[in-house]
Amino acid sequence: MIRISVLYPNEAGKKFDHAYYKDKHMPLVFQRLKPFGMIRYEVDKGVAGGAPGAPAPFVGACHLYFNTLPEFQKGMGQHGQELMADIPNYTNIGPQIQISEIVS
Amino acid sequence: MIRISVLYPNEAGKKFDHAYYKDKHMPLVFQRLKPFGMIRYEVDKGVAGGAPGAPAPFVGACHLYFNTLPEFQKGMGQHGQELMADIPNYTNIGPQIQISEIVS
Repeated sequence: MIRISVLYPNEAGKKFDHAYYKDKHMPLVFQRLKPFGMIRYEVDKGVAGGAPGAPAPFVGACHLYFNTLPEFQKGMGQHGQELMADIPNYTNIGPQIQISEIVS
Repeated sequence: MIRISVLYPNEAGKKFDHAYYKDKHMPLVFQRLKPFGMIRYEVDKGVAGGAPGAPAPFVGACHLYFNTLPEFQKGMGQHGQELMADIPNYTNIGPQIQISEIVS
């Protein structure tokens, strides 16, 4: 299975609207990409880093699960523009995108 | 639910033994932390970044699921030293640790 992680670095002075992300953006992503094979998703709110008192490296993140990468790519080819255009509604942080194979 | 993500940056010239990580290290982590409340885990092998041709930001990663953060902290208090001592067996990369609340 494939995981697409979208990770928003915890940068000083930037905004991130967790409620909009969870209640509006991510349901829209799932609605658009489910017909292309998106299985499910998880939404993270950063709490802490590893060392005592350390801040979370990422303020927010999501994980999208697909059986194959081309499914995600086809879905984004169709709906990526609309989904990207919604980002400024919840953040001005540029995300890191990690595509992984879930091996265990 | 709480996710602890351990993310290994994709750094040039460093080693990462995916087989050892998946077959030895992560089963040891689960064996040690399950009695403290660890529910399950997922292991990632980095495939790509978001832009066409971009490398994965992280060569490997894992995600540990707990109901509460103190469960993880208690388990690491008991077994952290042993688990950390196993890291050089598969990598010389210093991981980023992200603790998140799974909100959706």
